[in-house]
Amino acid sequence: MNKSIKQTFTCVGINNVIPIIQSKKFHIVEVLILKNSKAEKDKKLNDTLKSYGLNKIKKVNDIKGSQSFKTQGVSITFSGKLIYNEILVSSKKENVSFLVLDQIEDPQNFGQIIRTVECAGINGIIYPKHHSTPLNETVLQVSQGAFVNMKFYEVTNIRNELNKLKKNNFWIVGLENSIDAKPWYSIQYSDRTAIVVGSEGRGIRKKVLETCDFIATIPMQGITNSLNVGAATSVIVFESLRQKLEKK
Amino acid sequence: MNKSIKQTFTCVGINNVIPIIQSKKFHIVEVLILKNSKAEKDKKLNDTLKSYGLNKIKKVNDIKGSQSFKTQGVSITFSGKLIYNEILVSSKKENVSFLVLDQIEDPQNFGQIIRTVECAGINGIIYPKHHSTPLNETVLQVSQGAFVNMKFYEVTNIRNELNKLKKNNFWIVGLENSIDAKPWYSIQYSDRTAIVVGSEGRGIRKKVLETCDFIATIPMQGITNSLNVGAATSVIVFESLRQKLEKK
Repeated sequence: MNKSIKQTFTCVGINNVIPIIQSKKFHIVEVLILKNSKAEKDKKLNDTLKSYGLNKIKKVNDIKGSQSFKTQGVSITFSGKLIYNEILVSSKKENVSFLVLDQIEDPQNFGQIIRTVECAGINGIIYPKHHSTPLNETVLQVSQGAFVNMKFYEVTNIRNELNKLKKNNFWIVGLENSIDAKPWYSIQYSDRTAIVVGSEGRGIRKKVLETCDFIATIPMQGITNSLNVGAATSVIVFESLRQKLEKK
Repeated sequence: MNKSIKQTFTCVGINNVIPIIQSKKFHIVEVLILKNSKAEKDKKLNDTLKSYGLNKIKKVNDIKGSQSFKTQGVSITFSGKLIYNEILVSSKKENVSFLVLDQIEDPQNFGQIIRTVECAGINGIIYPKHHSTPLNETVLQVSQGAFVNMKFYEVTNIRNELNKLKKNNFWIVGLENSIDAKPWYSIQYSDRTAIVVGSEGRGIRKKVLETCDFIATIPMQGITNSLNVGAATSVIVFESLRQKLEKK
């Protein structure tokens, strides 16, 4: 049984609105367009609205919207199943890559990470229900539409989920400085991999780290001793992609 | 002749204040510490202040500071030579890696990029005097102290500087989608490399791109067609680092 939560969200900006409509995954409640705005004149946006036959478009005046709405002049309200509570375990043959965010607190980081890993071909993001930023409107907004191509798994126990993945032929790679860690590029990222990154301040929790098959580290070359979690995630997911592309 | 600009800046937060003092590169005008703040109790900060014999520390009450000062309760005002107008061309034997930012507009991106590339062992950042965010306090702040370990070259003509670097045995690699582009990992990043990334919206300017010896691309795996410039920079500078570490 795969429960999902149906929620309603509002996002602004052309880069968000177009993929939300194109994905056909959501029920579109309303599209607001500000008169005389950038959005009103945007060809790609107007073509998208027309070709998907949306009739829930309202043209509005300056008064209603927030500053972020006014910047480009378009907002979309939509509802749908975005978050799952259990991981869909696919057939053992299929290539799947997950990212696991162990208690990321900053919605800006979460949103940026979605945008980055979607570009790297990650299929789903697993994160804990508690002590983590939820998948809220800020997160979706920052992801610049990338969230429509991502599965989100909000789970109560990360460790249990990782153990289930391991039984389904996944390798678990944690990104953390530890004495067992190897340079990030010397680990083989197989076709079924889950990459775990930890929170901004504390890293991966001990019990979660114990579940990992490999621990990767990015050796720091300067005087500062930590990369931003988004930049570190970018490094490891694109190394994983490099290995896959080079194998082809 | 290597001109430099002497300027005065103020930064807040423990992660910024400690490296600024430890670098010994700057004249410290003043350190403000908020009474009963996190900073007042921070052992590493207090040890640093003591061991560098700073006597310009003022303890202040709640009234004076901004919100960002109050968060941790410490600010530092310092002056020094941070920005150069000409690139120091080092001996031809020395390994040097530069990053070139062709008209980056967002100070948050600039600051994040400094933090990222300092961790990857980049030695200097070249950026244009015009049509680019200057190296202001926001940029320094976001870099979380990484700027103290970086040389900054604010130049009037990027192309001229790249041509000078080429005469000094540098290879120039541009990150851009173009028909001549190769996957980012199939390019050899030599010991003297300058990596060029373009602005958030428009990419690298044509004349600058023509100066590049190689053009790298990061093939997008999802439905969105562009990585954030900070995430893309992270991918390419750490691929360059991977190649260097694997050669050792």
